[in-house]
Amino acid sequence: MSQMNGQWRLRSRPVGMVQESDFEYVEEPVPSLEAGQVLVRNLYLAFEPAMRGWLDDVPSYIPPVGIGEVMRASSVGQVVESRHEAFGKGELVSGMLGWQQYVVASGDPGPMGGLSKVPAGIPPAKVLSVLGGTGLTAYFGMLRVGQVQEGDAVLVSGAAGATGSVAAQIARLKGASKVVGIAGGPEKCAWLTEKAGLDAAIDYKGEDVGRRIREELPKGADLFFDNVGGAILDAALLGMAQNGRIVMCGGISGYNAKELPPGPRNIMQIVIRRLTVRGFILFDFIAEAGQALRDLSQWSAEGGIVSEEDIQEGFENTPKTFLRLFQGKNLGKQLLRIAEPE
Amino acid sequence: MSQMNGQWRLRSRPVGMVQESDFEYVEEPVPSLEAGQVLVRNLYLAFEPAMRGWLDDVPSYIPPVGIGEVMRASSVGQVVESRHEAFGKGELVSGMLGWQQYVVASGDPGPMGGLSKVPAGIPPAKVLSVLGGTGLTAYFGMLRVGQVQEGDAVLVSGAAGATGSVAAQIARLKGASKVVGIAGGPEKCAWLTEKAGLDAAIDYKGEDVGRRIREELPKGADLFFDNVGGAILDAALLGMAQNGRIVMCGGISGYNAKELPPGPRNIMQIVIRRLTVRGFILFDFIAEAGQALRDLSQWSAEGGIVSEEDIQEGFENTPKTFLRLFQGKNLGKQLLRIAEPE
Repeated sequence: MSQMNGQWRLRSRPVGMVQESDFEYVEEPVPSLEAGQVLVRNLYLAFEPAMRGWLDDVPSYIPPVGIGEVMRASSVGQVVESRHEAFGKGELVSGMLGWQQYVVASGDPGPMGGLSKVPAGIPPAKVLSVLGGTGLTAYFGMLRVGQVQEGDAVLVSGAAGATGSVAAQIARLKGASKVVGIAGGPEKCAWLTEKAGLDAAIDYKGEDVGRRIREELPKGADLFFDNVGGAILDAALLGMAQNGRIVMCGGISGYNAKELPPGPRNIMQIVIRRLTVRGFILFDFIAEAGQALRDLSQWSAEGGIVSEEDIQEGFENTPKTFLRLFQGKNLGKQLLRIAEPE
Repeated sequence: MSQMNGQWRLRSRPVGMVQESDFEYVEEPVPSLEAGQVLVRNLYLAFEPAMRGWLDDVPSYIPPVGIGEVMRASSVGQVVESRHEAFGKGELVSGMLGWQQYVVASGDPGPMGGLSKVPAGIPPAKVLSVLGGTGLTAYFGMLRVGQVQEGDAVLVSGAAGATGSVAAQIARLKGASKVVGIAGGPEKCAWLTEKAGLDAAIDYKGEDVGRRIREELPKGADLFFDNVGGAILDAALLGMAQNGRIVMCGGISGYNAKELPPGPRNIMQIVIRRLTVRGFILFDFIAEAGQALRDLSQWSAEGGIVSEEDIQEGFENTPKTFLRLFQGKNLGKQLLRIAEPE
């Protein structure tokens, strides 16, 4: 009898806030391997706000997940069986393996990057956070898009999230004169100043963000790294220095809106303050990932970057764990452990 | 008996759409000249949408006009009397001389640039349009901020306005593969394609702007030069090519709103399409104005740039002429002739 594979598939496209009921649990037998394929058992699933965008049937940088398809997600798993010479049983691998317990993947590079071996000595959780796509997004966003300079006054939103926390710490490592993070709630704000070494934190749930930006950065922000959009972007536009740069990494505040929410009222500040606003997608920089991962590994090993993971447990909790992102529950990278390596 | 000087002063700050009644007509004697000063009689007043922003008491790139002060405006005038060695009676000069018939100005350079001599052979109307600040705004916006490249697909809003029309023609001169202008009404659209040499025009008053952008630029706009903001910016965000650039020159659609209108709903397209959005103010490039004016003069003389002026008559019509900008009545530069040179 073949092994059964639990999967979470997209049942319906969410209208407004994504619900657990937008996904359905299905089991099917694990297919047998063909030549060149690898059977992987998923161990950790990773969750990102951008996944919400993959649920909408609108043109974007990546096709939407189809109704009835296994939800797309990055993960770390372990090779159970291999018919590809590059992979051996027991090896840890990462890839876009989806919300399922097992996956039969090609051992060759594919359109979503295929399988990558987890380097020896790196914990799986870090491969899915600071030493994976999340860290790379922060790295390229802060260094290549934002071009952070020594002496910059830097503002980061979503600063206790996986990407924002790394971006803020990279700014500090590169000699920013002050790094201010925006996050939700006193616990996250305390983590930012006490653990992540930021100069100040603004609690958007309890403070007037615009007033606090002016207090902390009276000359304005030279660089704003935005993961949130909405009201926080609007407030930040009034807190920018002349010739400031805004890196648009994401806009989680609007991802679950039923209709696209209005944009920032203060958009004319882009003219008045001569701002440069740039959006980016990690894919565009992926050819440079090698050097970036070496830098991120070194900074992590030396303690220049600290990172947190919020690790939930149990495959049955997959949709519920995804929703934590939009409830602001996660501090650092949201992960789900669904199995232990053997 | 001294000469009387008619002035239009700011009576009250407009709430929403600027009204003629926000200005009051006052006469006062022309003061006598002190050493170093020049008495100028205004001949042509120039009107720009950005002047609306000078009426609001909010922080901006320039202080607001004070209540009771003569309305700030650029103009061309003629020297009536001079006690400064650099200027002689009868010479034509330009400067920020305001809504008044006469002005006593220092002959030395001032914070607003002071008096500049109108070069021989250049019609005063051109000094206030294509060969003045308007042309320079288009020049630096298209070349330095937008960095138009040969082969670019270019979209321009406010394209029949003074700045937009020059910007669009510069793009064409620099080898854009296609230049599409957005303007209001069939007359302006006909001017764009028949006189200004644009490849296509979109009438935002009669056509679906988003659909027409996709028709005219099916691969998206590499460069969008925006004077309008609001719904047109929103539509254009969905019509940009990947890695496209948006030059934010102005946002006339929102200048007369009682409250700041909502920003573009499609702002996340900046991320999805990896756009770069840059705002600018002419002041920042003024040191390079000499070369720019030489280029603009040459292109105008050779017919590479055609320009229109909408010249109204009579100092009593000053506020009314200003309002034409926001009624979409002007094709090309809005000017008012208030006197003839002697």
